[in-house]
Amino acid sequence: MKQIKLVVLLILLSVFNKTYADDGSKLWLNYKPLENAELKESYAQLFEDVYLAGEDETIQAISEELKTGLSCMLENNVTISSKWNMQSLVIGTPSGSEQIAALKIDKQLEKLGNDGYIIASKKIDKKNVIVVASKSNIGALYGTFHLLRLIKTESNFENINIEESPKHQHRVLNHWDNLNRTVERGFAGSSIWDWHKLPGYIYPQYIEYARANASIGINGTVLTNVNANALVLTDTYIEKAAALANVFRPYGIKIYLTARFSAPIEIGGLKTADPLDEDVKQFWKETADRIYKQIPDFGGFLVKADSEGQPGPHNYKRTQAEGANMLAEALKPHGGLVMWRAFVYNHEVPVDRALQAYNEFVPLDGKFHDNVIVQVKNGAIDFQPREPYHPLFGAMPNTPLMMEFQITQEYLGHAIHLTYLAPLYKETLETDTYIKGEGSTVAKILDGSIHNYPVTAIAGVANIGTDRNWTGHLFGQANWYAFGRLAWNHNLSAENIAAEWAKMTFSNKTAVVNPVVEMMMASREMGVSYRTPIGLHHIMAESHHYGPGPWVTGRRPDWTAVYYHQASETGIGFDRTTKGSNAVSQYPEKIKEQYNSTETCPEKFLLWFHHLPWDYKMNSGRTLWDEMVYKYYTGADSVVWMQEKWNSVEKHIDFERFNHVKQLLEMQKNDAIEWRNSCVLYFQQFSKMPIPSEFEKPEKPLEYYQNKKRLFVPGI
Amino acid sequence: MKQIKLVVLLILLSVFNKTYADDGSKLWLNYKPLENAELKESYAQLFEDVYLAGEDETIQAISEELKTGLSCMLENNVTISSKWNMQSLVIGTPSGSEQIAALKIDKQLEKLGNDGYIIASKKIDKKNVIVVASKSNIGALYGTFHLLRLIKTESNFENINIEESPKHQHRVLNHWDNLNRTVERGFAGSSIWDWHKLPGYIYPQYIEYARANASIGINGTVLTNVNANALVLTDTYIEKAAALANVFRPYGIKIYLTARFSAPIEIGGLKTADPLDEDVKQFWKETADRIYKQIPDFGGFLVKADSEGQPGPHNYKRTQAEGANMLAEALKPHGGLVMWRAFVYNHEVPVDRALQAYNEFVPLDGKFHDNVIVQVKNGAIDFQPREPYHPLFGAMPNTPLMMEFQITQEYLGHAIHLTYLAPLYKETLETDTYIKGEGSTVAKILDGSIHNYPVTAIAGVANIGTDRNWTGHLFGQANWYAFGRLAWNHNLSAENIAAEWAKMTFSNKTAVVNPVVEMMMASREMGVSYRTPIGLHHIMAESHHYGPGPWVTGRRPDWTAVYYHQASETGIGFDRTTKGSNAVSQYPEKIKEQYNSTETCPEKFLLWFHHLPWDYKMNSGRTLWDEMVYKYYTGADSVVWMQEKWNSVEKHIDFERFNHVKQLLEMQKNDAIEWRNSCVLYFQQFSKMPIPSEFEKPEKPLEYYQNKKRLFVPGI
Repeated sequence: MKQIKLVVLLILLSVFNKTYADDGSKLWLNYKPLENAELKESYAQLFEDVYLAGEDETIQAISEELKTGLSCMLENNVTISSKWNMQSLVIGTPSGSEQIAALKIDKQLEKLGNDGYIIASKKIDKKNVIVVASKSNIGALYGTFHLLRLIKTESNFENINIEESPKHQHRVLNHWDNLNRTVERGFAGSSIWDWHKLPGYIYPQYIEYARANASIGINGTVLTNVNANALVLTDTYIEKAAALANVFRPYGIKIYLTARFSAPIEIGGLKTADPLDEDVKQFWKETADRIYKQIPDFGGFLVKADSEGQPGPHNYKRTQAEGANMLAEALKPHGGLVMWRAFVYNHEVPVDRALQAYNEFVPLDGKFHDNVIVQVKNGAIDFQPREPYHPLFGAMPNTPLMMEFQITQEYLGHAIHLTYLAPLYKETLETDTYIKGEGSTVAKILDGSIHNYPVTAIAGVANIGTDRNWTGHLFGQANWYAFGRLAWNHNLSAENIAAEWAKMTFSNKTAVVNPVVEMMMASREMGVSYRTPIGLHHIMAESHHYGPGPWVTGRRPDWTAVYYHQASETGIGFDRTTKGSNAVSQYPEKIKEQYNSTETCPEKFLLWFHHLPWDYKMNSGRTLWDEMVYKYYTGADSVVWMQEKWNSVEKHIDFERFNHVKQLLEMQKNDAIEWRNSCVLYFQQFSKMPIPSEFEKPEKPLEYYQNKKRLFVPGI
Repeated sequence: MKQIKLVVLLILLSVFNKTYADDGSKLWLNYKPLENAELKESYAQLFEDVYLAGEDETIQAISEELKTGLSCMLENNVTISSKWNMQSLVIGTPSGSEQIAALKIDKQLEKLGNDGYIIASKKIDKKNVIVVASKSNIGALYGTFHLLRLIKTESNFENINIEESPKHQHRVLNHWDNLNRTVERGFAGSSIWDWHKLPGYIYPQYIEYARANASIGINGTVLTNVNANALVLTDTYIEKAAALANVFRPYGIKIYLTARFSAPIEIGGLKTADPLDEDVKQFWKETADRIYKQIPDFGGFLVKADSEGQPGPHNYKRTQAEGANMLAEALKPHGGLVMWRAFVYNHEVPVDRALQAYNEFVPLDGKFHDNVIVQVKNGAIDFQPREPYHPLFGAMPNTPLMMEFQITQEYLGHAIHLTYLAPLYKETLETDTYIKGEGSTVAKILDGSIHNYPVTAIAGVANIGTDRNWTGHLFGQANWYAFGRLAWNHNLSAENIAAEWAKMTFSNKTAVVNPVVEMMMASREMGVSYRTPIGLHHIMAESHHYGPGPWVTGRRPDWTAVYYHQASETGIGFDRTTKGSNAVSQYPEKIKEQYNSTETCPEKFLLWFHHLPWDYKMNSGRTLWDEMVYKYYTGADSVVWMQEKWNSVEKHIDFERFNHVKQLLEMQKNDAIEWRNSCVLYFQQFSKMPIPSEFEKPEKPLEYYQNKKRLFVPGI
């Protein structure tokens, strides 16, 4: 036995004999023995035998996680039994175990709901035990992952008393994956769903995917792209989807599909997709019946309609509510949910794109069926490095709204730039709308506590692909992780999640955790600085959105850069004040006043709402131009600072992951300089002002950057 | 230290706690400790200290392979030194080591050439040593991989005396990889070349790829698709290719690119690509210069011209020789090679497609420059499950010809069917052309011994992609392996290579090796039987070529099935006799006579050359129809036999690899039945004869199979 161990270790030595290679494929579940030997000893005693009550597939999954997790981290031989035998760790439900029932925690667990759980020091038959208990086995699975996380992050279990329940009912990943395995805005290889081989072939990765999501509380996944293909609603594909649902079920993950609004025409043989047409209604009812026949716990539909060329109710002069409700009726008998996207805009509508979703949806408040939830992006434009929160939040008290965050880094350097997104998520979630007085944060609107939404949900557009490390950039795993943790509890801080992820992923050593957390916490702000400082937005390259493109013009103004930055000799910025497009008026009075005045508008949003002269004085005392240049230069320079931080962890982690990130940081540095030079030189044409002498001049002329073409960039 | 070992083992336990999971990513280099403890002991002493002479990157690679390989398999602590210190294993070159020079083996090594090597028991300073010696460090690397293979396959080292040198100078993989990372006829995920991240980001997989190829003697790789994109010849992409060349160089692997014939127009700004145009010649000279500036050891160009829509000399009324020579002149000063494909055909030419390449190339024999080699597919049609050898072999004594085999299974079940291809390769290689009397095999034409070709080469179209196991189907690795081994030495038997691969990949246990080898050896013939028995060919589904399509018709006869099987009420088969298309006359007299007569034509080629009535009597005594049905049914049934064989190894190998193959075999079984039923029912329309009562009737009607549509099949 010892023999085999040695080998396996050595196999991992693999390429170039550094600290054993880690390709990142195990994500934050790459259990290794605890570095703190003392703790390991004490944990090993505490968790050497487990009473695991119950016997369904979820209990089986819990058992596997414990065996792998505990024995890897504690190097003990865990024994797990479904009979109470005075074990020190007790996991299960009151309904599954009389010992747990005897603890009289039913009411407490009831309050925590199906997904909630407790981890607490208790006595059973006078024996001191740690209990992981929930109303449901899924809750017990969540509690088990929490327990393993506490161990891996070397936490204290004395008189432990944890109560957990999620802030949102539905915590969902959106995969923009196409049936041909390309992934729209996917930068980590191709789609992990191998539709061609389904249902016959099940990749181990499907199970690893379910484990990873369950470990952070994600309980739903939309398998297909919002730019949808109706074929996924045919029996052939439903059978394939059902095979995935079977893999995910033990881990509490429901699957959803995207419903193409014109499916009745494309696969139903109808002449119309009019939501009020009886045949169309019948088509969707039958489609839902067909799906639930194969997937009894199917989650429902996600729909992108009347946006960017997708068909929708508009084609039939119907409202978004009429479209959504028609689908809701089809799903209703089966308990399915419609997630209807509010990302609706049209370049033929002659108003500021930022206003359109609000204008269309607010009048429909209260008109949606109770199994419809409207999915709203964090900002009104489109996942920019920084956006003010979407004015729809707070404006629809009678219609459940859910958040759509982007985990994949469409506008933030794809899988090449290190950009930790929790600070972006938190910035939106913690924005106070004042809609019901102080503390009416966006988060509280989402979790239902402001408007008492009957349904609550949050979605993240996945950054997952077939790359061995799942997300292309190892630190992309942190964004998947952070989304899940915040979907569970939006009160967690970005910094604590970063530290938790760093410990789970690398090590508990402060020499690793500290620099990694510093890098992560600074990364998004620096990404904003070298791309779109002071409220600039949508000035990226066309189509692939990777590099800079402040010069982008085109047929469709709302897809150009010049439309959004409005740069001219007189100044720069999009006037959305009451004197401009008046987008500010979509916000509650208090916010409106704040954003409407240059005095009170946060400088980070200044050019989002205001068109200002180049010599406008900023709080720093600098002119707007100088401030902009300052941001671009310091932003780009800070990547070098990240590189130094990263180099400091080299001796503490394996070579493969170290070198992976090191190479990408070098690419990020060069990209940041390209962004900086492109934007500064481009805007200088209008400002006609010099680059402050403290900064080196760009080595190349503007034309060089404008002519730089990137070909075959992934994710389009 | 022991601690870590345990963990690493347990990490690998991973999903569902079976024998530790192996995702196949380590290929045949997944060094594990020898199962034979006694041997392991004796090897451990034999190979505990190594004298490795020299110090370049290749020597460094040898050192890494020894550290990983020896310590994993023998669990000893290997010490490696570049100084002679009475070690038991000696590796290097006479020029790099006076001790090796003192062995007076220079002449022997000279004879073996740069890539050749010896592994022999010798005495140095009276010490018994095993010497791995070569003229070059690359040869020493090959010898080292051979040594490690001998250890892994538990071979005898007593008085060892091995001499090795490759049969072909250039042993090359052809990647049909596009710049957007799709892979034409690729079934194992997307292209491993991440052009977008090159040159900045180097995947560890690039190094693993180089190691794997070097371990089987492959020394060249064509990075891009023969359906070429001229952009790869621009500086941007050459810089990216150069980064790969740098990774591969220490492993003796040269890179090649595909040259799109119309590149002078597409990226050169010229109006023509006429090979006799001075500007065009100049464009290619400059292109070659640009490439060699960044890649000093660039291998050369592979060209697909005048075929399936690709531009070529025909567009300018020039010959294939004029096209090839023009490129050869550009490469000549740098020592580059042109691999010019003979796969030239045109549906506007009113002759049997099988004749066209021969008709076009034979008249050009001797007209090609000395750095041109003509690359010929194994058969005259296109990588069918079975084809007679290509008549060009033997017909061009004054023009070096190289073989193009397909490793990727375009017509043999993609990455879903288990099909071991060495028997297919061997069938062609061992065919006797009698061109210079008995024993004038295709292999001897290729290795130059028949016509004294100054250049020799062999190419295989890669089956490699981003799937964790590289080839999609684990057994696809065996085809990559077998191609490399046969490229090195075409005298190896398919069976010995299969056994070698099975031992390298799984285990030396006969309980594993025997059934695995039996499956492999039977698999190709069964694949022929349930698809295209008795010389049938090109009856697969359109475009994706995965399923059956005997009913395929279309605008282009040479892309239909009916054109090739010619089934009618009077009979079936393509008459290529002297009374038919006369393709037989392209073969040497002796072969021509054999194929031309139904008496002497091997039954496996019968319908390739003859159109015969349904009641034609076969050697078995059955009618042609009954024989065909018999082949289809027994072929499909034999997949069940494979499943039984595979189930027998379950207890001897890890769950992940076992289950991977088990799932795919089940899919293969269903596909085989679909092939069988489709073809039998389709041809029965013409034969009007019954399915012999011993066979169950197809459960579904022909229409069912004809209407079965496969969508989004990979590899198109």
